[in-house]
Amino acid sequence: MNIKYHIKIEYDGTNFAGWQYQKNALSIQEILQKAISKYLRHKTAVIGSGRTDAGVHAIEQSAHFETKIKIVDFDKFIFAINFNLKKYPIVLTKVEKKNYLFHARYSAKKRTYKYLIFNRKSSSPLNQNRVWFIRKKLNLAIMIKCLKCLKGKHDFSTFRASSCQAKTPVRTISSVFLKKSKDIIEIKFTSRSFLQNQVRSMVGAIKYVGEKKWTLNKFIKNFNSRKRSNCAPPAPACGLYLEKIQY
Amino acid sequence: MNIKYHIKIEYDGTNFAGWQYQKNALSIQEILQKAISKYLRHKTAVIGSGRTDAGVHAIEQSAHFETKIKIVDFDKFIFAINFNLKKYPIVLTKVEKKNYLFHARYSAKKRTYKYLIFNRKSSSPLNQNRVWFIRKKLNLAIMIKCLKCLKGKHDFSTFRASSCQAKTPVRTISSVFLKKSKDIIEIKFTSRSFLQNQVRSMVGAIKYVGEKKWTLNKFIKNFNSRKRSNCAPPAPACGLYLEKIQY
Repeated sequence: MNIKYHIKIEYDGTNFAGWQYQKNALSIQEILQKAISKYLRHKTAVIGSGRTDAGVHAIEQSAHFETKIKIVDFDKFIFAINFNLKKYPIVLTKVEKKNYLFHARYSAKKRTYKYLIFNRKSSSPLNQNRVWFIRKKLNLAIMIKCLKCLKGKHDFSTFRASSCQAKTPVRTISSVFLKKSKDIIEIKFTSRSFLQNQVRSMVGAIKYVGEKKWTLNKFIKNFNSRKRSNCAPPAPACGLYLEKIQY
Repeated sequence: MNIKYHIKIEYDGTNFAGWQYQKNALSIQEILQKAISKYLRHKTAVIGSGRTDAGVHAIEQSAHFETKIKIVDFDKFIFAINFNLKKYPIVLTKVEKKNYLFHARYSAKKRTYKYLIFNRKSSSPLNQNRVWFIRKKLNLAIMIKCLKCLKGKHDFSTFRASSCQAKTPVRTISSVFLKKSKDIIEIKFTSRSFLQNQVRSMVGAIKYVGEKKWTLNKFIKNFNSRKRSNCAPPAPACGLYLEKIQY
Protein backbone atom coordinates (compact mmCIF):
# COMPACT_ATOMS: atom_id res chain seq x y z
CA MET A 1 0.00 0.00 0.00
CA ASN A 2 1.09 3.55 -0.69
CA ILE A 3 2.38 5.80 2.04
CA LYS A 4 1.17 9.38 2.27
CA TYR A 5 3.60 12.20 2.92
CA HIS A 6 2.68 15.72 3.93
CA ILE A 7 5.05 18.40 2.65
CA LYS A 8 5.37 22.12 3.32
CA ILE A 9 6.64 24.47 0.63
CA GLU A 10 7.75 28.10 0.43
CA TYR A 11 7.73 29.93 -2.90
CA ASP A 12 8.10 33.28 -4.57
CA GLY A 13 5.09 33.27 -6.89
CA THR A 14 6.18 36.27 -8.99
CA ASN A 15 7.06 34.45 -12.19
CA PHE A 16 4.63 31.54 -12.04
CA ALA A 17 1.17 31.01 -13.45
CA GLY A 18 0.09 29.99 -9.93
CA TRP A 19 0.04 26.75 -7.95
CA GLN A 20 -2.24 24.69 -10.20
CA TYR A 21 -0.94 22.67 -13.15
CA GLN A 22 -1.62 24.31 -16.51
CA LYS A 23 -0.95 23.02 -19.98
CA ASN A 24 0.73 26.09 -21.42
CA ALA A 25 2.22 27.88 -18.44
CA LEU A 26 4.67 27.13 -15.67
CA SER A 27 3.03 26.21 -12.37
CA ILE A 28 4.51 25.46 -8.96
CA GLN A 29 2.65 22.14 -8.83
CA GLU A 30 4.23 20.96 -12.08
CA ILE A 31 7.77 21.81 -10.98
CA LEU A 32 7.28 20.18 -7.61
CA GLN A 33 5.77 17.03 -9.13
CA LYS A 34 8.72 16.69 -11.48
CA ALA A 35 11.27 17.22 -8.69
CA ILE A 36 9.64 14.66 -6.39
CA SER A 37 8.91 12.13 -9.15
CA LYS A 38 12.52 12.32 -10.28
CA TYR A 39 13.69 11.46 -6.77
CA LEU A 40 11.17 8.63 -6.31
CA ARG A 41 11.79 7.34 -9.85
CA HIS A 42 8.07 7.07 -10.48
CA LYS A 43 5.40 9.59 -11.35
CA THR A 44 3.40 10.94 -8.44
CA ALA A 45 0.77 13.66 -8.12
CA VAL A 46 1.40 16.46 -5.66
CA ILE A 47 -1.95 17.60 -4.25
CA GLY A 48 -1.99 21.08 -2.73
CA SER A 49 -4.15 22.49 0.06
CA GLY A 50 -5.62 24.78 -2.57
CA ARG A 51 -4.64 26.96 -5.49
CA THR A 52 -2.76 30.19 -5.28
CA ASP A 53 -3.14 32.61 -8.19
CA ALA A 54 -0.39 33.74 -10.54
CA GLY A 55 2.03 35.99 -8.65
CA VAL A 56 0.81 34.98 -5.17
CA HIS A 57 3.49 33.80 -2.72
CA ALA A 58 3.50 31.06 -0.11
CA ILE A 59 5.32 31.18 3.20
CA GLU A 60 3.96 27.74 3.96
CA GLN A 61 1.85 25.94 1.41
CA SER A 62 0.87 22.36 2.31
CA ALA A 63 0.58 19.42 -0.06
CA HIS A 64 0.69 15.63 -0.08
CA PHE A 65 1.89 12.88 -2.35
CA GLU A 66 1.80 9.09 -2.32
CA THR A 67 4.50 6.53 -2.91
CA LYS A 68 5.38 2.93 -2.14
CA ILE A 69 8.90 4.06 -1.31
CA LYS A 70 9.65 4.48 2.36
CA ILE A 71 11.41 7.78 3.02
CA VAL A 72 13.70 7.14 5.98
CA ASP A 73 15.86 10.25 6.30
CA PHE A 74 13.64 13.34 6.01
CA ASP A 75 16.56 15.82 6.05
CA LYS A 76 18.19 13.97 3.20
CA PHE A 77 14.90 13.89 1.28
CA ILE A 78 14.41 17.66 1.69
CA PHE A 79 17.99 18.30 0.64
CA ALA A 80 17.63 16.11 -2.47
CA ILE A 81 14.31 17.64 -3.54
CA ASN A 82 15.67 21.16 -3.05
CA PHE A 83 18.62 20.20 -5.20
CA ASN A 84 16.16 19.21 -7.95
CA LEU A 85 14.34 22.53 -7.42
CA LYS A 86 17.45 24.71 -7.39
CA LYS A 87 16.65 26.50 -10.65
CA TYR A 88 13.37 27.78 -9.18
CA PRO A 89 12.35 30.01 -6.24
CA ILE A 90 10.57 27.06 -4.61
CA VAL A 91 11.80 25.13 -1.58
CA LEU A 92 10.58 22.20 0.43
CA THR A 93 10.77 23.09 4.12
CA LYS A 94 9.18 20.05 5.79
CA VAL A 95 8.10 16.48 5.18
CA GLU A 96 6.10 14.22 7.47
CA LYS A 97 4.53 10.78 7.16
CA LYS A 98 0.75 10.85 7.55
CA ASN A 99 -2.14 8.49 8.04
CA TYR A 100 -3.54 7.33 4.69
CA LEU A 101 -6.76 9.29 5.29
CA PHE A 102 -4.84 12.59 5.33
CA HIS A 103 -5.61 14.87 2.38
CA ALA A 104 -3.82 18.22 1.95
CA ARG A 105 -6.99 19.86 0.68
CA TYR A 106 -9.86 18.12 2.42
CA SER A 107 -8.25 17.65 5.82
CA ALA A 108 -7.36 21.34 6.13
CA LYS A 109 -9.13 22.94 9.10
CA LYS A 110 -7.92 26.53 8.72
CA ARG A 111 -6.17 28.59 6.08
CA THR A 112 -4.38 31.87 6.86
CA TYR A 113 -3.56 34.47 4.24
CA LYS A 114 -1.45 37.54 4.83
CA TYR A 115 -1.56 40.69 2.71
CA LEU A 116 1.19 43.34 2.78
CA ILE A 117 0.63 46.98 1.81
CA PHE A 118 3.59 49.35 1.62
CA ASN A 119 2.23 52.78 2.48
CA ARG A 120 4.72 55.58 1.88
CA LYS A 121 5.23 58.43 -0.58
CA SER A 122 7.99 56.56 -2.41
CA SER A 123 8.06 52.89 -3.33
CA SER A 124 10.45 50.38 -1.73
CA PRO A 125 13.09 48.66 -3.90
CA LEU A 126 13.86 46.28 -1.03
CA ASN A 127 10.24 45.08 -1.12
CA GLN A 128 9.83 44.83 -4.88
CA ASN A 129 7.24 42.14 -5.80
CA ARG A 130 6.54 41.54 -2.11
CA VAL A 131 4.02 44.29 -1.30
CA TRP A 132 1.27 46.46 -2.76
CA PHE A 133 2.72 49.96 -2.93
CA ILE A 134 0.17 52.67 -2.08
CA ARG A 135 1.32 56.26 -2.07
CA LYS A 136 -1.72 57.84 -0.41
CA LYS A 137 -1.75 57.62 3.38
CA LEU A 138 -4.35 55.07 4.48
CA ASN A 139 -6.60 55.50 7.52
CA LEU A 140 -5.98 52.39 9.61
CA ALA A 141 -8.76 52.93 12.16
CA ILE A 142 -11.44 52.75 9.50
CA MET A 143 -9.78 49.78 7.79
CA ILE A 144 -9.96 47.90 11.10
CA LYS A 145 -13.70 48.64 11.20
CA CYS A 146 -14.06 47.06 7.74
CA LEU A 147 -12.18 43.99 8.94
CA LYS A 148 -14.55 43.62 11.87
CA CYS A 149 -17.51 43.62 9.47
CA LEU A 150 -15.93 40.78 7.50
CA LYS A 151 -15.31 38.56 10.52
CA GLY A 152 -17.83 35.75 11.03
CA LYS A 153 -20.20 33.83 8.77
CA HIS A 154 -21.37 35.81 5.73
CA ASP A 155 -22.33 35.58 2.10
CA PHE A 156 -19.18 36.84 0.35
CA SER A 157 -20.65 37.09 -3.18
CA THR A 158 -19.34 40.69 -3.48
CA PHE A 159 -15.80 39.44 -2.95
CA ARG A 160 -15.94 36.37 -5.18
CA ALA A 161 -14.44 36.06 -8.64
CA SER A 162 -17.09 35.57 -11.33
CA SER A 163 -15.26 32.38 -12.33
CA CYS A 164 -15.43 30.94 -8.77
CA GLN A 165 -16.85 27.42 -8.79
CA ALA A 166 -17.59 26.99 -5.07
CA LYS A 167 -21.06 25.61 -4.34
CA THR A 168 -21.90 28.35 -1.88
CA PRO A 169 -20.69 31.95 -1.41
CA VAL A 170 -21.01 31.57 2.37
CA ARG A 171 -17.75 31.42 4.32
CA THR A 172 -16.80 31.91 7.97
CA ILE A 173 -13.80 34.10 8.67
CA SER A 174 -12.65 33.03 12.10
CA SER A 175 -10.07 35.74 12.64
CA VAL A 176 -8.94 39.06 11.19
CA PHE A 177 -5.82 41.04 12.00
CA LEU A 178 -4.25 44.36 11.06
CA LYS A 179 -0.92 45.74 12.22
CA LYS A 180 1.29 48.54 10.98
CA SER A 181 5.03 48.51 11.55
CA LYS A 182 7.06 51.28 9.96
CA ASP A 183 5.56 51.65 6.47
CA ILE A 184 4.13 48.14 6.15
CA ILE A 185 0.48 47.37 6.83
CA GLU A 186 -0.05 43.66 7.44
CA ILE A 187 -3.58 42.27 7.10
CA LYS A 188 -4.47 38.66 7.91
CA PHE A 189 -7.52 36.49 7.45
CA THR A 190 -8.12 32.97 8.74
CA SER A 191 -10.96 30.77 7.51
CA ARG A 192 -11.63 27.10 6.87
CA SER A 193 -11.65 28.02 3.18
CA PHE A 194 -11.86 31.05 0.93
CA LEU A 195 -13.68 31.77 -2.32
CA GLN A 196 -11.67 32.43 -5.46
CA ASN A 197 -10.07 35.90 -5.28
CA GLN A 198 -11.77 36.55 -1.94
CA VAL A 199 -8.78 37.89 -0.01
CA ARG A 200 -7.59 40.16 -2.80
CA SER A 201 -11.16 41.42 -3.35
CA MET A 202 -11.63 42.17 0.35
CA VAL A 203 -8.28 43.95 0.56
CA GLY A 204 -9.10 45.98 -2.57
CA ALA A 205 -12.34 47.15 -0.97
CA ILE A 206 -10.74 47.89 2.40
CA LYS A 207 -8.08 49.97 0.65
CA TYR A 208 -10.87 52.01 -1.01
CA VAL A 209 -12.20 52.81 2.47
CA GLY A 210 -8.70 53.50 3.82
CA GLU A 211 -8.08 56.12 1.15
CA LYS A 212 -11.61 57.55 1.56
CA LYS A 213 -12.79 56.61 -1.91
CA TRP A 214 -15.58 54.74 -0.09
CA THR A 215 -17.19 55.48 3.27
CA LEU A 216 -17.54 52.65 5.77
CA ASN A 217 -21.28 52.73 5.02
CA LYS A 218 -20.67 52.24 1.32
CA PHE A 219 -18.38 49.30 2.13
CA ILE A 220 -21.10 47.69 4.25
CA LYS A 221 -23.77 48.38 1.64
CA ASN A 222 -21.67 46.84 -1.13
CA PHE A 223 -20.78 43.85 1.05
CA ASN A 224 -24.46 43.30 1.84
CA SER A 225 -25.52 43.72 -1.79
CA ARG A 226 -23.82 40.37 -2.61
CA LYS A 227 -23.07 41.64 -6.10
CA ARG A 228 -19.65 41.20 -7.63
CA SER A 229 -20.21 44.39 -9.61
CA ASN A 230 -20.14 46.31 -6.32
CA CYS A 231 -16.60 45.25 -5.49
CA ALA A 232 -13.54 47.51 -5.74
CA PRO A 233 -10.69 46.31 -8.01
CA PRO A 234 -8.98 43.34 -6.30
CA ALA A 235 -5.59 44.01 -4.71
CA PRO A 236 -2.62 42.84 -6.83
CA ALA A 237 -1.23 39.33 -6.37
CA CYS A 238 2.29 40.48 -5.39
CA GLY A 239 1.20 41.48 -1.85
CA LEU A 240 -0.58 38.19 -1.05
CA TYR A 241 0.97 35.30 0.91
CA LEU A 242 -0.49 31.94 1.81
CA GLU A 243 0.85 31.91 5.35
CA LYS A 244 -0.24 28.66 6.92
CA ILE A 245 -2.58 25.69 6.67
CA GLN A 246 -3.75 24.14 9.90
CA TYR A 247 -4.91 20.52 10.05
CA MET B 1 25.24 81.07 -2.70
CA ASN B 2 24.47 77.41 -3.02
CA ILE B 3 21.84 75.73 -0.89
CA LYS B 4 22.56 72.35 0.69
CA TYR B 5 19.97 69.60 0.63
CA HIS B 6 20.06 66.45 2.70
CA ILE B 7 18.49 63.41 1.02
CA LYS B 8 17.65 59.90 2.22
CA ILE B 9 17.78 56.96 -0.14
CA GLU B 10 16.70 53.31 -0.09
CA TYR B 11 18.30 50.81 -2.46
CA ASP B 12 18.62 47.16 -3.31
CA GLY B 13 22.39 46.85 -3.74
CA THR B 14 22.33 43.40 -5.40
CA ASN B 15 23.28 44.43 -8.91
CA PHE B 16 25.48 47.44 -8.19
CA ALA B 17 29.22 47.85 -7.72
CA GLY B 18 28.42 49.68 -4.47
CA TRP B 19 27.65 53.26 -3.49
CA GLN B 20 30.87 54.91 -4.66
CA TYR B 21 31.35 56.16 -8.23
CA GLN B 22 33.55 53.87 -10.34
CA LYS B 23 34.78 54.35 -13.84
CA ASN B 24 33.90 50.95 -15.25
CA ALA B 25 31.01 49.76 -13.12
CA LEU B 26 27.53 50.94 -12.18
CA SER B 27 27.34 52.66 -8.80
CA ILE B 28 24.39 54.05 -6.86
CA GLN B 29 26.13 57.42 -6.55
CA GLU B 30 26.47 57.76 -10.32
CA ILE B 31 22.82 56.96 -11.01
CA LEU B 32 21.64 59.32 -8.29
CA GLN B 33 23.89 62.15 -9.48
CA LYS B 34 22.55 61.79 -13.00
CA ALA B 35 18.92 61.71 -11.85
CA ILE B 36 19.31 64.82 -9.67
CA SER B 37 21.49 66.72 -12.15
CA LYS B 38 18.93 66.06 -14.87
CA TYR B 39 16.20 67.61 -12.72
CA LEU B 40 18.31 70.62 -11.68
CA ARG B 41 19.63 71.09 -15.23
CA HIS B 42 23.17 71.41 -13.95
CA LYS B 43 25.77 68.93 -12.75
CA THR B 44 25.94 68.37 -9.04
CA ALA B 45 27.88 65.94 -6.86
CA VAL B 46 25.94 63.70 -4.51
CA ILE B 47 28.06 63.10 -1.40
CA GLY B 48 27.11 60.06 0.65
CA SER B 49 27.50 59.42 4.38
CA GLY B 50 29.94 56.70 3.43
CA ARG B 51 30.44 53.89 0.97
CA THR B 52 28.51 50.67 0.88
CA ASP B 53 30.18 47.69 -0.81
CA ALA B 54 28.92 45.92 -3.91
CA GLY B 55 25.75 44.00 -3.06
CA VAL B 56 25.10 45.80 0.23
CA HIS B 57 21.64 47.33 0.67
CA ALA B 58 20.47 50.56 2.25
CA ILE B 59 17.23 51.05 4.12
CA GLU B 60 18.22 54.66 4.69
CA GLN B 61 21.43 55.98 3.23
CA SER B 62 22.03 59.72 3.70
CA ALA B 63 23.66 62.09 1.23
CA HIS B 64 23.78 65.77 0.33
CA PHE B 65 24.07 67.89 -2.77
CA GLU B 66 24.35 71.61 -3.53
CA THR B 67 22.49 73.81 -5.94
CA LYS B 68 21.54 77.43 -6.51
CA ILE B 69 18.02 76.29 -7.35
CA LYS B 70 15.50 76.63 -4.55
CA ILE B 71 13.45 73.49 -4.18
CA VAL B 72 10.03 74.58 -3.00
CA ASP B 73 7.83 71.52 -3.16
CA PHE B 74 9.68 68.57 -1.60
CA ASP B 75 7.01 65.98 -2.49
CA LYS B 76 7.14 67.08 -6.11
CA PHE B 77 10.95 66.92 -6.08
CA ILE B 78 10.95 63.37 -4.67
CA PHE B 79 8.36 62.30 -7.21
CA ALA B 80 10.37 63.77 -10.09
CA ILE B 81 13.68 62.26 -8.99
CA ASN B 82 12.05 58.85 -8.49
CA PHE B 83 10.65 59.13 -11.99
CA ASN B 84 14.22 59.66 -13.26
CA LEU B 85 15.32 56.64 -11.18
CA LYS B 86 12.49 54.35 -12.24
CA LYS B 87 14.71 51.94 -14.18
CA TYR B 88 16.73 51.20 -11.03
CA PRO B 89 16.00 49.73 -7.57
CA ILE B 90 16.89 53.06 -5.94
CA VAL B 91 14.41 55.52 -4.45
CA LEU B 92 14.62 58.89 -2.80
CA THR B 93 12.54 58.82 0.38
CA LYS B 94 13.24 62.23 1.92
CA VAL B 95 14.69 65.65 1.16
CA GLU B 96 15.40 68.45 3.60
CA LYS B 97 17.11 71.85 3.39
CA LYS B 98 20.17 72.11 5.63
CA ASN B 99 22.58 74.67 6.99
CA TYR B 100 25.52 75.16 4.63
CA LEU B 101 27.87 73.56 7.20
CA PHE B 102 26.02 70.24 6.98
CA HIS B 103 28.02 67.43 5.42
CA ALA B 104 26.50 63.98 4.87
CA ARG B 105 29.78 62.30 5.77
CA TYR B 106 31.49 64.54 8.29
CA SER B 107 28.39 65.63 10.23
CA ALA B 108 27.26 62.05 10.84
CA LYS B 109 27.16 61.22 14.56
CA LYS B 110 26.11 57.57 14.40
CA ARG B 111 25.83 54.90 11.77
CA THR B 112 23.70 51.77 12.22
CA TYR B 113 24.16 48.62 10.18
CA LYS B 114 21.86 45.61 10.27
CA TYR B 115 22.82 42.09 9.24
CA LEU B 116 20.27 39.36 8.49
CA ILE B 117 21.02 35.63 8.75
CA PHE B 118 18.43 33.10 7.61
CA ASN B 119 18.97 30.03 9.77
CA ARG B 120 16.94 27.03 8.61
CA LYS B 121 17.58 23.70 6.93
CA SER B 122 16.23 24.96 3.62
CA SER B 123 16.87 28.33 2.00
CA SER B 124 14.15 30.96 1.58
CA PRO B 125 13.08 32.02 -1.92
CA LEU B 126 11.10 34.92 -0.43
CA ASN B 127 14.35 36.28 1.07
CA GLN B 128 16.60 35.74 -1.94
CA ASN B 129 19.45 38.32 -2.00
CA ARG B 130 18.23 39.73 1.31
CA VAL B 131 19.84 37.37 3.86
CA TRP B 132 22.81 35.10 4.49
CA PHE B 133 21.43 31.57 4.39
CA ILE B 134 23.04 29.28 6.98
CA ARG B 135 21.83 25.70 7.20
CA LYS B 136 23.53 24.70 10.45
CA LYS B 137 21.65 25.74 13.59
CA LEU B 138 23.48 28.61 15.28
CA ASN B 139 23.88 29.00 19.03
CA LEU B 140 22.46 32.45 19.79
CA ALA B 141 23.54 32.64 23.43
CA ILE B 142 27.20 32.40 22.53
CA MET B 143 26.81 34.82 19.62
CA ILE B 144 25.41 37.38 22.06
CA LYS B 145 28.55 36.90 24.19
CA CYS B 146 30.68 37.72 21.13
CA LEU B 147 28.65 40.86 20.53
CA LYS B 148 29.23 41.99 24.10
CA CYS B 149 33.00 41.64 23.57
CA LEU B 150 32.79 43.90 20.51
CA LYS B 151 30.86 46.68 22.24
CA GLY B 152 32.94 49.67 23.33
CA LYS B 153 36.24 51.21 22.23
CA HIS B 154 38.66 48.68 20.70
CA ASP B 155 41.34 48.17 18.12
CA PHE B 156 39.43 46.38 15.35
CA SER B 157 42.45 45.45 13.19
CA THR B 158 41.28 41.80 13.06
CA PHE B 159 38.03 42.91 11.44
CA ARG B 160 39.45 45.42 8.99
CA ALA B 161 39.93 44.88 5.25
CA SER B 162 43.59 44.93 4.25
CA SER B 163 42.70 47.72 1.80
CA CYS B 164 41.17 49.90 4.54
CA GLN B 165 42.60 53.43 4.48
CA ALA B 166 41.40 54.71 7.86
CA LYS B 167 44.13 56.40 9.93
CA THR B 168 43.41 54.33 13.01
CA PRO B 169 41.92 50.86 13.56
CA VAL B 170 40.30 52.06 16.79
CA ARG B 171 36.52 52.43 16.76
CA THR B 172 33.84 52.70 19.42
CA ILE B 173 30.77 50.53 18.97
CA SER B 174 28.10 52.25 21.03
CA SER B 175 25.45 49.57 20.76
CA VAL B 176 25.02 45.96 19.69
CA PHE B 177 21.79 44.03 19.24
CA LEU B 178 20.71 40.49 18.36
CA LYS B 179 17.18 39.20 17.96
CA LYS B 180 15.74 36.07 16.40
CA SER B 181 12.22 36.01 15.01
CA LYS B 182 11.13 32.85 13.24
CA ASP B 183 14.14 31.81 11.18
CA ILE B 184 15.74 35.24 10.85
CA ILE B 185 18.59 36.35 13.11
CA GLU B 186 18.96 40.13 13.09
CA ILE B 187 22.26 41.63 14.27
CA LYS B 188 22.83 45.39 14.61
CA PHE B 189 25.83 47.57 15.30
CA THR B 190 25.91 51.31 15.93
CA SER B 191 29.12 53.36 15.84
CA ARG B 192 30.23 56.84 14.84
CA SER B 193 32.05 55.14 11.98
CA PHE B 194 33.18 51.71 10.87
CA LEU B 195 36.34 50.41 9.22
CA GLN B 196 36.16 48.97 5.73
CA ASN B 197 34.49 45.54 5.82
CA GLN B 198 34.22 45.73 9.61
CA VAL B 199 30.60 44.67 10.01
CA ARG B 200 30.84 41.77 7.57
CA SER B 201 34.12 40.64 9.18
CA MET B 202 32.62 40.73 12.68
CA VAL B 203 29.51 38.84 11.54
CA GLY B 204 31.66 36.23 9.80
CA ALA B 205 33.59 35.62 13.02
CA ILE B 206 30.45 35.55 15.19
CA LYS B 207 28.94 33.00 12.82
CA TYR B 208 32.05 30.81 13.31
CA VAL B 209 31.40 30.87 17.05
CA GLY B 210 27.65 30.28 16.58
CA GLU B 211 28.31 27.11 14.58
CA LYS B 212 31.06 26.00 17.02
CA LYS B 213 33.90 26.24 14.52
CA TRP B 214 35.48 28.62 17.05
CA THR B 215 35.12 28.73 20.83
CA LEU B 216 34.35 32.04 22.48
CA ASN B 217 37.94 32.04 23.75
CA LYS B 218 39.31 31.66 20.26
CA PHE B 219 37.11 34.55 19.13
CA ILE B 220 38.46 36.76 21.93
CA LYS B 221 42.03 35.67 21.23
CA ASN B 222 41.72 36.45 17.53
CA PHE B 223 40.03 39.79 18.26
CA ASN B 224 42.83 40.72 20.66
CA SER B 225 45.57 39.57 18.25
CA ARG B 226 44.73 42.56 15.99
CA LYS B 227 45.74 40.51 12.97
CA ARG B 228 43.59 40.40 9.88
CA SER B 229 44.89 36.91 9.18
CA ASN B 230 43.05 35.73 12.31
CA CYS B 231 39.63 36.75 10.99
CA ALA B 232 37.00 34.31 9.72
CA PRO B 233 35.77 34.82 6.13
CA PRO B 234 33.60 37.98 6.04
CA ALA B 235 29.84 37.48 5.80
CA PRO B 236 28.43 37.98 2.28
CA ALA B 237 27.21 41.43 1.19
CA CYS B 238 23.61 40.31 0.49
CA GLY B 239 22.72 40.17 4.22
CA LEU B 240 24.02 43.65 5.07
CA TYR B 241 21.88 46.80 5.30
CA LEU B 242 22.90 50.37 6.06
CA GLU B 243 19.94 51.09 8.33
CA LYS B 244 20.29 54.65 9.50
CA ILE B 245 22.62 57.63 9.82
CA GLN B 246 22.07 59.94 12.77
CA TYR B 247 23.21 63.57 12.70
